[in-house]
Amino acid sequence: MEVLKIVNQIKSKRSFLCVGLDVDLEKIPKFLLDKNDPIFEFNKSIIDNTHMHCIAYKLNTAFYEAYGIKGWKALEKTINYINNNYSEIFTIADAKRGDIGNTSRMYARSFFEQLNFDSITVNPYMGRDSVEPFLEYNDKNTIILALTSNEGSKDLQLISTANDYVFMDLIKSSKTWNNSKNLMYVIGATKTEYLEEIRKIIPDNFLLIPGIGAQGGNLKEVCKKTINNNIGIIINSSRGIIYSGNDENFAQAAEKEAISLKKQMEEILIDSKLI
Amino acid sequence: MEVLKIVNQIKSKRSFLCVGLDVDLEKIPKFLLDKNDPIFEFNKSIIDNTHMHCIAYKLNTAFYEAYGIKGWKALEKTINYINNNYSEIFTIADAKRGDIGNTSRMYARSFFEQLNFDSITVNPYMGRDSVEPFLEYNDKNTIILALTSNEGSKDLQLISTANDYVFMDLIKSSKTWNNSKNLMYVIGATKTEYLEEIRKIIPDNFLLIPGIGAQGGNLKEVCKKTINNNIGIIINSSRGIIYSGNDENFAQAAEKEAISLKKQMEEILIDSKLI
Repeated sequence: MEVLKIVNQIKSKRSFLCVGLDVDLEKIPKFLLDKNDPIFEFNKSIIDNTHMHCIAYKLNTAFYEAYGIKGWKALEKTINYINNNYSEIFTIADAKRGDIGNTSRMYARSFFEQLNFDSITVNPYMGRDSVEPFLEYNDKNTIILALTSNEGSKDLQLISTANDYVFMDLIKSSKTWNNSKNLMYVIGATKTEYLEEIRKIIPDNFLLIPGIGAQGGNLKEVCKKTINNNIGIIINSSRGIIYSGNDENFAQAAEKEAISLKKQMEEILIDSKLI
Repeated sequence: MEVLKIVNQIKSKRSFLCVGLDVDLEKIPKFLLDKNDPIFEFNKSIIDNTHMHCIAYKLNTAFYEAYGIKGWKALEKTINYINNNYSEIFTIADAKRGDIGNTSRMYARSFFEQLNFDSITVNPYMGRDSVEPFLEYNDKNTIILALTSNEGSKDLQLISTANDYVFMDLIKSSKTWNNSKNLMYVIGATKTEYLEEIRKIIPDNFLLIPGIGAQGGNLKEVCKKTINNNIGIIINSSRGIIYSGNDENFAQAAEKEAISLKKQMEEILIDSKLI
């Protein structure tokens, strides 16, 4: 998706919220389990009740794969439902894939062509030639894991190198990759001490930021350090929104939570003179 | 799978070959395309004709995902076929997954419980807590990407750190993870200059080595530098075996190629006084 379309959507919805559809059958309202496809029914209700308050949906493929073919069908139905009904929405396959060139090309085909996601998260451990097959798609965005929000980020991403940290060297070198303009970066909200430095290196690229809420990231502080003239950030919330309620009114509860985050974002956009 | 079972299988088959079932519909014999499930039919023939010469099959999930639900069905049928008919074989889901703890747990459930693979390849970029959910399964093996065979391995894995390289720091720290005895490591055959050093750090763990043949790795040299008293290596070949022929006799051509590699391995095992 063109970045301009994302920016325009943010400005018109006054929100830069991404809702993470990480559906766990053990956590969704019990009454849905009697339906033919509980995962899709859950997603459909959440989407119908939140699409006006968010600008993106992120589907973590792990949650769908866990249910085998049934799960993949629900994934397909969900992405099709979004594309057919709310085509302005930016869709993210949170798949964290990455392999040697030819194999990454297969993954790119699955997620960009067959499933028609606007973007995919990619694990950069195998380097340039494992990411470039995704970058070849000019109408798609490739979101590489840079600095993740979890504890284990220190084990590899935060190893010190001659000049910096591993993740920072990676970000720098990613700027030289073919079509690097199509790159976005996953940066965890819990890593506030690195945010300003990251923005110096990639002032223009969009950041996908998980880790607000449950994981402890502070929305205002994170935004202050990362927002740019093009807004430049998408904040994800998954469990905090989709599991707000667990009865027949779960989708309304999710909507309420999305509105609450949207209002905080609207305030930040106004304060930053971006709307 | 217990390492002892793998070692015994290697000794009795006189081979430490893994056949990579990376099935691309554009590369399999044309006559198979008329069948109901060409991917599975191809795999079944390859397996029936190579299982006595190899000790493992590796299924790269990218190739199956590329065909959507049809592909996932072929993946399920293939792993079930191996488990039901050749239960001694060590099975590898080459999925290169890895995510925050709870999400990795979903992946572990998919590949270890639902699909019943013996092992999975895991991308370690997100660190300890992204890998440990896989390691919790005591009867399964977790194979982390350490030093891959592709050009892009230099972009991140080979960045210099205070003491060593990123991939080497990773291997060292992985030894402190819970249940690290269940770890194996992917080490590319093209990286001969690092093999002896790697073996010093992890003398006992099994290495899964791709990159022989098409990618240029030399079998004898690689084995000399990595084989241990427990053999300790599994050498993968994918395209070099499964696409040896492209007519009705493709499975026999694959068998011939597998036998040729097996004979070279047998010689190495004899020279090393391991059989």
